[in-house]
Amino acid sequence: MRIIDLIEKKKNSEALSKEEIAFLVKGFTSGSIPDYQMAAWLMAVCFNGMNEDETAWLTYEMARSGDVLDLSMIKGPTVDKHSTGGVGDKTTLIVAPLAAALGMYVAKMSGRGLSHTGGTIDKLESIRGFETELSRDAFIKQVSSHGLAVVGQSEGLAPADKKMYALRDVTGTVASLPLIASSIMSKKIASGARHIVLDVKVGDGAFMNTLDEARTLAKAMVEIGSKLGRVVCAVLSDMDQPLGRAIGNTLEVRESIDVLRGEGPDDLRDLSVYLTAKLLQLADGCTFEDARKRARDTLASGAALLKFKEMVRTQGGIWKEEEIYPEMPTAPVVRTVTMSTSGYLTNIPARALGMIAMQLGAGREEKASLIDHRVGLVLYKKTGDSVREGDLFAEIHAATEDDADRAAKQLAVWMETSPDALAKRSLILDEIRALG
Amino acid sequence: MRIIDLIEKKKNSEALSKEEIAFLVKGFTSGSIPDYQMAAWLMAVCFNGMNEDETAWLTYEMARSGDVLDLSMIKGPTVDKHSTGGVGDKTTLIVAPLAAALGMYVAKMSGRGLSHTGGTIDKLESIRGFETELSRDAFIKQVSSHGLAVVGQSEGLAPADKKMYALRDVTGTVASLPLIASSIMSKKIASGARHIVLDVKVGDGAFMNTLDEARTLAKAMVEIGSKLGRVVCAVLSDMDQPLGRAIGNTLEVRESIDVLRGEGPDDLRDLSVYLTAKLLQLADGCTFEDARKRARDTLASGAALLKFKEMVRTQGGIWKEEEIYPEMPTAPVVRTVTMSTSGYLTNIPARALGMIAMQLGAGREEKASLIDHRVGLVLYKKTGDSVREGDLFAEIHAATEDDADRAAKQLAVWMETSPDALAKRSLILDEIRALG
Repeated sequence: MRIIDLIEKKKNSEALSKEEIAFLVKGFTSGSIPDYQMAAWLMAVCFNGMNEDETAWLTYEMARSGDVLDLSMIKGPTVDKHSTGGVGDKTTLIVAPLAAALGMYVAKMSGRGLSHTGGTIDKLESIRGFETELSRDAFIKQVSSHGLAVVGQSEGLAPADKKMYALRDVTGTVASLPLIASSIMSKKIASGARHIVLDVKVGDGAFMNTLDEARTLAKAMVEIGSKLGRVVCAVLSDMDQPLGRAIGNTLEVRESIDVLRGEGPDDLRDLSVYLTAKLLQLADGCTFEDARKRARDTLASGAALLKFKEMVRTQGGIWKEEEIYPEMPTAPVVRTVTMSTSGYLTNIPARALGMIAMQLGAGREEKASLIDHRVGLVLYKKTGDSVREGDLFAEIHAATEDDADRAAKQLAVWMETSPDALAKRSLILDEIRALG
Repeated sequence: MRIIDLIEKKKNSEALSKEEIAFLVKGFTSGSIPDYQMAAWLMAVCFNGMNEDETAWLTYEMARSGDVLDLSMIKGPTVDKHSTGGVGDKTTLIVAPLAAALGMYVAKMSGRGLSHTGGTIDKLESIRGFETELSRDAFIKQVSSHGLAVVGQSEGLAPADKKMYALRDVTGTVASLPLIASSIMSKKIASGARHIVLDVKVGDGAFMNTLDEARTLAKAMVEIGSKLGRVVCAVLSDMDQPLGRAIGNTLEVRESIDVLRGEGPDDLRDLSVYLTAKLLQLADGCTFEDARKRARDTLASGAALLKFKEMVRTQGGIWKEEEIYPEMPTAPVVRTVTMSTSGYLTNIPARALGMIAMQLGAGREEKASLIDHRVGLVLYKKTGDSVREGDLFAEIHAATEDDADRAAKQLAVWMETSPDALAKRSLILDEIRALG
């Protein structure tokens, strides 16, 4: 087999066989296929795509290019929830303990944030002492005993995907649906869970801006999972405005704990319950309505909060018994921003707010950037809310007065109101399940 | 300027500016743009093409990536003839001295053969003592004094093209019309001649198999030349069967000398006269009929033979006054092949015969292969010729009896006859000139 023939094949819009895909991924990972040939193949894929079989095989080969987590020793349903990334999206911090409290097993490997989107691992690292790197044995053991563990993606997880993504990033070949779908799913497959719920974010603050794009990606991912023997469904949820109120690591952990305590914003609670109920439906075979009721009841019982506290402490996080929140640093400057007009808020754009938080230090402009866990935004209004001049619009948590000044100026740009009430967009936009 | 943006631009089918093309070629040549990014860009070009301006700029930048020959000190019309490659194509050995005998100046840099096609430099190196590497000064001086010099392409000629071609060769990006056209033309532009005739071969033994493909390539090349201030026309000529009778280096030099002596096969003489007349028409402004008559007369006068002999000797080739041919090695085994049937020859396929000659040692399977100047084929029949059983079909010139045996068996496959006469294909199929 010669790589040049596989490039020509894809250039001529022919499908590659399972063996050819395996040759390609193994050769690229080992270095026997050089970057320039892989780049040419990837560009040909951008133009000619891949069929469902090719995409599934690519995913499979990337998943098994490194460590594949074996969860077979866990005696219960293993579940995973994945979000395609958004602003203020902290559902993992609620869904994971809630699912564990419902008897499911959550062995979650999470990523870090990039650009305007946050990452679960960054959020958890706000907690003093919290350890996000566990050995494989310790990780599986914790999941077995406690029902959940959330760690960073190990270096050995789907290294082919890591190498391929790095190449795509510099060769203009990121924007290809089968490549995006297989990249995400390769890590899910390698993570070992049997039941997977994908939260595909749609809108201004998401990677998929339109419902059609998001549906296509969701279908591709669900298809891959099914072909590779997993039980998968995808929920499409709104990311035109941030989820919940808090953007920034410490602030998001606090807000998640608020939801686990029965408080916190409605949208965050509703979506977290919805996603957990989906996992339960897949794992248990019950109806969705039944699953949702059980999820709501368990959340209300405080069992999920206990699970979360148990996980934080097991992973080394410091959380005193008498405290509502674990030990986390706080920002030295907190500035409030109030409304300068009255009416209905026309737009709370997720991407712009994510960028403001990132510039405060909450996110990374580049992979190597350091982040400041203390800083971020808390928004007290949502798109379509009726507001009056002088109402509290947001809180800025900043490292310096200068940072707070700049963020306040940037925020002011987005505080537009209209005299007319607007139709509110639904939080859950669609759902994609495997056929058959 | 960032290469990633230029990749995205081409991927989105947008045209690159002159400055962007310059950035790309300079960066790739210097190494600041890595192979993998260039490969992605090249693949995007394969899908989305380039417009005429982009193609001309690419050619220009590749031409000036290295030495550009300055022929301004030559006081007379500078001309160049380029063939896209064929089997038995030795017209340069006739056109160059004939053009020089007509008062034109031929500073020719030629290539070596690859696969089933031969190269002028390999042919000339059949002559004992012939030097194909001259310093730039010696080269221009010889052209000034003698009207012609034929040398190998220097390492410094269009290095960007050389590097880009090597990358295209391993990334499935050879087959792109603007890339092929600009690659050929970059070397012509760097070679400095003002008047250029392109001999675009069409058929089984050529890189362009159909007349439509060849026309498109010819138009692209003529367009590039015109945009870059050269006077260019393209002649499309048949390569379904080999040109002339001889295939193989020594044999082809002998056949060229036969034509210069007023003998040799009709097709080779006719095409050589045609191409020379085209050069004269471009350089002189006369009518084609007038140019052709002058070319014929000059050939008949023996002046072109004298020019060829003058060139061979000036470049160190040994050619005794009393000898018809210069000193060249001959093959130890000469085998004749006769017809086993009677009728009209249905097909003398150029590619297959080129491959047989290559396997005898006349050509290179790979760039690094050594060639045997002595060996090859002489075909005594052309497609459509009426033959009788026992007629001489071909002579095999081989290094060993075994080689001759194998070639005889391979040749026998192609000696098919039909009872019906066939229409003969014209030698000159079309002509493409610059617009305006």
